[in-house]
Formats: sequence, C-alpha cells, structure tokens
Amino acid sequence: MSIKVLTIKEDILGANEEKAKANRELVDKHHILMINIMSSPGAGKTSLILQTINRFKGKTRIAVIEGDVASTMDADKVSKLAVPVIQINTAGACHLDANMIRKALDNLALEQIDLLLIENVGNLICTAEFALGAHKQVMLLSVPEGDDKPYKYPLMFTEADVVLVNKIDVLPYFDFNVNAFSKAVSGLNPSAKIFPVSAKTGEGLEAWFSWLENAIKQQTSTA
Amino acid sequence: MSIKVLTIKEDILGANEEKAKANRELVDKHHILMINIMSSPGAGKTSLILQTINRFKGKTRIAVIEGDVASTMDADKVSKLAVPVIQINTAGACHLDANMIRKALDNLALEQIDLLLIENVGNLICTAEFALGAHKQVMLLSVPEGDDKPYKYPLMFTEADVVLVNKIDVLPYFDFNVNAFSKAVSGLNPSAKIFPVSAKTGEGLEAWFSWLENAIKQQTSTA
Repeated sequence: MSIKVLTIKEDILGANEEKAKANRELVDKHHILMINIMSSPGAGKTSLILQTINRFKGKTRIAVIEGDVASTMDADKVSKLAVPVIQINTAGACHLDANMIRKALDNLALEQIDLLLIENVGNLICTAEFALGAHKQVMLLSVPEGDDKPYKYPLMFTEADVVLVNKIDVLPYFDFNVNAFSKAVSGLNPSAKIFPVSAKTGEGLEAWFSWLENAIKQQTSTA
Repeated sequence: MSIKVLTIKEDILGANEEKAKANRELVDKHHILMINIMSSPGAGKTSLILQTINRFKGKTRIAVIEGDVASTMDADKVSKLAVPVIQINTAGACHLDANMIRKALDNLALEQIDLLLIENVGNLICTAEFALGAHKQVMLLSVPEGDDKPYKYPLMFTEADVVLVNKIDVLPYFDFNVNAFSKAVSGLNPSAKIFPVSAKTGEGLEAWFSWLENAIKQQTSTA
C-alpha cells in the first residue's frame, strides 16, 4: 500500500528566549554551571542525578530543580541526600520553561551553588523546544526505548550536548544497536558526546563524571 | 532538607473538543470503531498494532493513522501488512489533535473500514489532553519505564479505558511491581482494564484481542 504523508505545522512555542537569557546571566553572575537533563519518562534521569550527587558531594556544591507534571517523588529522593531541591509541578504542562526556572532560582541560595542540575519533565519533544538558560543540554535515551529514536525525535538529539545511552545493563535483552544509534545521533549532531552508561550499576559513568568535572571547572574558573 | 513546591499553571489546550465530536460523528456514521493508542516513546505501540493487524486480518477491515514528529518508519512497517495507513507528521507538535485526524479521515476510504487504530505521538502528557474523537483510549506503559508512572502522569492513567503493561518478557530484569502498578492505576481510574502483555512474544495478548473483538462487535452492530 502507498503511504500518504500529511505535514501539519503548529506553533506551540511562546516567547521564552528572553527569559532564558536572563536566567543565564543570573547563574553566570554566581558562577553556577546549570545543566538541563531531558529524556522520556522512566529513562533514568533521577538515577543519574542521584549517582552524580554521590560522586561530587563534598567537592562540589550541588542543587537540583525537579520538574514533574505531578508528585514530589523525585524531589523526595534527592532531598534524602541532603542537597537543596526545588520541585516544580507544571500542572499539566509537558515541559519546564524559563519562567518556571526563574521562580526556582529565586528560591535557591545561589551564592552556595556550583552545579545546578535541572531534571526536566519526562518528554522527548516539548522539553527540547523551550530554552531554560542552561549552559548544557544533556539527554538520556534508554536501551528499552529502541535505537530508532533519533529519526523520530530529531530536535532533541540535535540540541543535546551530551547523549547518555542509559540502561546498558539490559542490552542483552533488547534489540538495540549502540553503533547504529551513535551513527544516527552523529548524523544529526556531529559534536554531541555519546556515553553508554548504566545509572543503575554505575557502568560507564566515569566518562560522564569527567565530562561534567571539566564543564564545572570551566564555569567556576570564570570567578 | 525541606522541599519547596512551586505549582505553575499553564493553559496549553486549544478549542479542540468540537472538532473531536465531529470526527466521532463521522466514524459513527460509518460504524467504525476508532481507538487512540498512547504511550511514552518506545513503549511498544507499533508492535501492538502489528500484532493486532495480524490477529484480525481477514475478519476485520483495519486501517491505521500513524502520528510522529518526524519520519515514516512506523507507517512503513504497517504498510507491509497491506493495511491502509496515513502518516501524520506533526512537525514538532507533541500530540495529534482532532484537526489532524479529520484530515486523515478525509484521506481514507471510510466505507471500507471496521477498525481504525490511531498511533499517537510518543508522549505520556500532551496526547491525553487532546480529544481526537476516538471511542476508546488505550495506553501502554512498558515495564522498563517503572511502576511509579501513574503518580507522575496521572491524567493519562485517568483517561485510559485500557492500560496495557507491555514488555512483561523483561520483568525479571527490572524492579517493576505489577500489583503495585495495578493498584495505583485502579486508584486513579477504577474502571480501567489492565492487561499485562508482551507485544514482542505475544504473551497475554489474547485478553487484549478479546476486549477489542467485543468493542468492535458493539460498534459494528449499530449498523
């Protein structure tokens, strides 16, 4: 059968850029590295954040902004590690935006933060469209989601500075070709760093930690 | 640490309801059962559709509307089974809407269809907010996504007539409690049918097929 393709354009973007710029200026003033972490629901953002806190605690002053449609489940987990955390409930909205981040920044002691991790809402589409003012865009794609996702959600993969291929501990049970996936990502975004990891077992996380350490150094050395 | 909760309301819904109603009238006129299938990216919507086509072929005249931000990968797979398929590329939008479905309906031979399966965009949030005119809302939640999702994405679980717990073939490798998940869903939505399945191995699919068979009978018997 032949396939009919209908392309329907919709403008779902607001004027968000100016506010994102102001957020960036604010965190820059305090020499904070701000990272926007994005993925599908359940891909492992919170696990990655918890591992990262444990690795950098004592050396780096971390704070977290948690974005969810509802619940404080993730913020509860972060809070147990004695790290400042703000939960944003978007009340239905499928992504964080610069305005929400500004309200969170206004509720944090910025002079006591080196690294600010933002866990965006679980969503592979809208989150990539709304700038928050973050210095780096980090995304997770988990093995069970499949290696075809760069073709279906190209914007996210184009915007990401780092792509973490998470849940590599279950690679034997899924048809996921890491090489084919990496090629597809590089085709869209040649400068993206790709790190295969398991936020559950810790496998591969050292590459992510050292990338992050470098980025923190660059930002805080502007002091 | 104490957690601050900011609730930020945003109106992302358009006036979609009237158009959805018109779609419903159109498919009712042709005694078509229209099903809206929703899930996160990579949860197994396409696999479920392919299994369903194979099971009902010969008895039930099926057509498919595929919704994706980009690509025709899923429509290509459906098309190989010699079933009429329309690919909608939303060009960035995170969900299908009633307007898009109307355009697709206008491109299908409605008098030759008993069952119309709509594969919505991979997204656990926005898709639940936009009525398409479908008779039934079906969602998939795959085991690797975690059993906490009803708390984080309550609207989807509240709207669903059927919740398929997909990828039960990998249950041994994930911390997913099917009973806890089912309880959480029933708490939000006591009338939702919950079917644990593997669209890959076929396990559990008979319960889904027989639910669907019943629903088709009810709709086509209005002829």
